[in-house]
Amino acid sequence: MKQIISMKSVSLLRGNREILQDINWEVREKEQWVILGLNGSGKTSILNIVTGYQYPTKGEVSVLGQKFGQTNLPELRKQIGFVSSSLDGFYQTLRSETAEDIVISGKFASIGLYENVTYEDREQAEQLMTFLRIDHLKGKTYDTLSQGERRKVLIGRALMAKPELLILDEPSIGLDLLAREDILSLMKEIIIHQRCHVLYVTHYIEEIIEEMTHVLLLKEGQIVAAGRKEAVLTDELLSETFQLPIKVHWENNRPWVSIHKNISSTK
Amino acid sequence: MKQIISMKSVSLLRGNREILQDINWEVREKEQWVILGLNGSGKTSILNIVTGYQYPTKGEVSVLGQKFGQTNLPELRKQIGFVSSSLDGFYQTLRSETAEDIVISGKFASIGLYENVTYEDREQAEQLMTFLRIDHLKGKTYDTLSQGERRKVLIGRALMAKPELLILDEPSIGLDLLAREDILSLMKEIIIHQRCHVLYVTHYIEEIIEEMTHVLLLKEGQIVAAGRKEAVLTDELLSETFQLPIKVHWENNRPWVSIHKNISSTK
Repeated sequence: MKQIISMKSVSLLRGNREILQDINWEVREKEQWVILGLNGSGKTSILNIVTGYQYPTKGEVSVLGQKFGQTNLPELRKQIGFVSSSLDGFYQTLRSETAEDIVISGKFASIGLYENVTYEDREQAEQLMTFLRIDHLKGKTYDTLSQGERRKVLIGRALMAKPELLILDEPSIGLDLLAREDILSLMKEIIIHQRCHVLYVTHYIEEIIEEMTHVLLLKEGQIVAAGRKEAVLTDELLSETFQLPIKVHWENNRPWVSIHKNISSTK
Repeated sequence: MKQIISMKSVSLLRGNREILQDINWEVREKEQWVILGLNGSGKTSILNIVTGYQYPTKGEVSVLGQKFGQTNLPELRKQIGFVSSSLDGFYQTLRSETAEDIVISGKFASIGLYENVTYEDREQAEQLMTFLRIDHLKGKTYDTLSQGERRKVLIGRALMAKPELLILDEPSIGLDLLAREDILSLMKEIIIHQRCHVLYVTHYIEEIIEEMTHVLLLKEGQIVAAGRKEAVLTDELLSETFQLPIKVHWENNRPWVSIHKNISSTK
């Protein structure tokens, strides 16, 4: 079976600080993973390593069957779609671009359309926009869109290159409940219909929809647990990961949490 | 009994759009209110009116017993503390200020210390920092603090002027679960010990801690419900407000929610 991601004994040092410690993690075909952890737990570093923007201090990494150190990273990156809310500031350069031009530009991994756009590209972008239920945004410029609409346009842009791996880094930040459910509903459609593997990073356990199968729990650069979500999303493991007394209950095929400590003693 | 906030038949037009429609709302002494609603529901407009930064198109507004139109707004504002995560960009000007100087500057409603700081001011700031459990941040500059620490310093700054009304606009945005619980634990302490009225604006129902007594639900510029939280936080009223089938359950004296629609049909 094809490996999507493989990390063997991966560590990452920054100065004397161990950002990641001895990470052993494998993502196989047909698995859809969520990464959970507090700020500073190493979530972003894992993503930076997967996308080849950061090189581990120790250990071996393969992504989509390509072993790092023996592969052409820019070529590999074309197979990885990446949407990050932490890039919101960067995306401001898109202000006056139309929604459909932003989607199409995903083909070229560029901002703005500097290369020749074919009829087929435009058709593919139109299909994607229909699929993402954003065809009504055609002709509208990025700066006139709501935050939820912007996220969907950027997801469209990421899908334009038909990635094998789609990484979403906290796609719900700043969205309200309704816009968040809308993004989650798209995640479901993408997992079912787009034949790509999703790696979904979030703080919020309740965003783990039915179609997401596996969870990686990170704490202070180490793995607390990794595996099928039913085994990983337990009160004990979540409480350890978030350093809070968390209780989880399943409803509507999703995990929902409550916190049980008397909060006056939180510290 | 003293009125903290009173709005009578308040409407706000922007161009032809009714941002707020016929708002009748009263906050009385010893009530601690939460405002809930989707983006665009009018939450920020309500805050802008309360702080006198926006004037209603129609209706009457009183805050802390002062009737707008007959009062000195800059004087009134000194009695209102305001912390907003939407001002994060603005607060970047604080970068090289120390935590304690930022807290002290709240006395003068200024950024930076342009006025004489007395011994008593420094002592009050120290007491506040102890109260907020941020005394260990003394001497550290703003740009070296975590997001949660920054929020706490800004809350300290708002409390420095001993406000009668403390407004927090989405103070948990961008924080992880642990940092959010830490802020909520401070809210509890502030409500119990600081003798000020809190107005707490959020998207997240689970942030309504035991000490917050009342809830205002807003939808498209209108009030869905306003009153004691036990009466307002029902499945029906929350589902109408958020346009999602929300179920609420109470645990640990806090409301926790789950969403019940099959999300594939979310739109």
